[in-house]
Amino acid sequence: MLTSAIILFAHGAREPEWARPFERVRDALRSDGARVELAYLELMTPTLEEAARVLVSEGVKTVTIVPLFLASGKHLKHELPERMSALRRNHAGVEFRVSPALGEDPEIISAISAWVTRKMR
Amino acid sequence: MLTSAIILFAHGAREPEWARPFERVRDALRSDGARVELAYLELMTPTLEEAARVLVSEGVKTVTIVPLFLASGKHLKHELPERMSALRRNHAGVEFRVSPALGEDPEIISAISAWVTRKMR
Repeated sequence: MLTSAIILFAHGAREPEWARPFERVRDALRSDGARVELAYLELMTPTLEEAARVLVSEGVKTVTIVPLFLASGKHLKHELPERMSALRRNHAGVEFRVSPALGEDPEIISAISAWVTRKMR
Repeated sequence: MLTSAIILFAHGAREPEWARPFERVRDALRSDGARVELAYLELMTPTLEEAARVLVSEGVKTVTIVPLFLASGKHLKHELPERMSALRRNHAGVEFRVSPALGEDPEIISAISAWVTRKMR
């Protein structure tokens, strides 16, 4: 039983197929042996709270929330910290971490730039 | 004078700092010598139409619109095709292409998965 888990946190949308890229990331991580759930800010389920509840009920003690957002706006700067506070209040004894957003990592910026360059060939 | 150009197309948000990751991608591509503009769907300027007008006025003949969206929802499936049609009507003699969204590329999915794995170490 893994006591550490990841929640990939995505925005959500009305069209089910919108979720495909995030499901692919989740599946790639699972095939590497990680305990990973996908959760959404709005319009899709599970919510962050629902995904956390499942992991905690399974005995997970450390949850890292990884925002799969290219950029940080009000959702990540204001809503996510409030939700993190609520998670910590509701699940004493479980450590909740949050990572910077995807687009804040220089390696991701390089990967995106290289991808755009490939489009131009 | 380059006759081909790229428009990086991002969602937009209220906070100016939201745009930083996209500006970094634009700057990386410009430093490689590409003619690149950044345009937004909403909440930020320039719009796609404004960016296209500038490029066309400078003599650009082929414009590739690259959606910097992780996933494709209504914005890319419905709004963008309508805007592409309008661009083609308004700028006869200029070729407008559109690339698939960022999150549809398997290499981007791999780069994101690797980034998440690094967060867990």
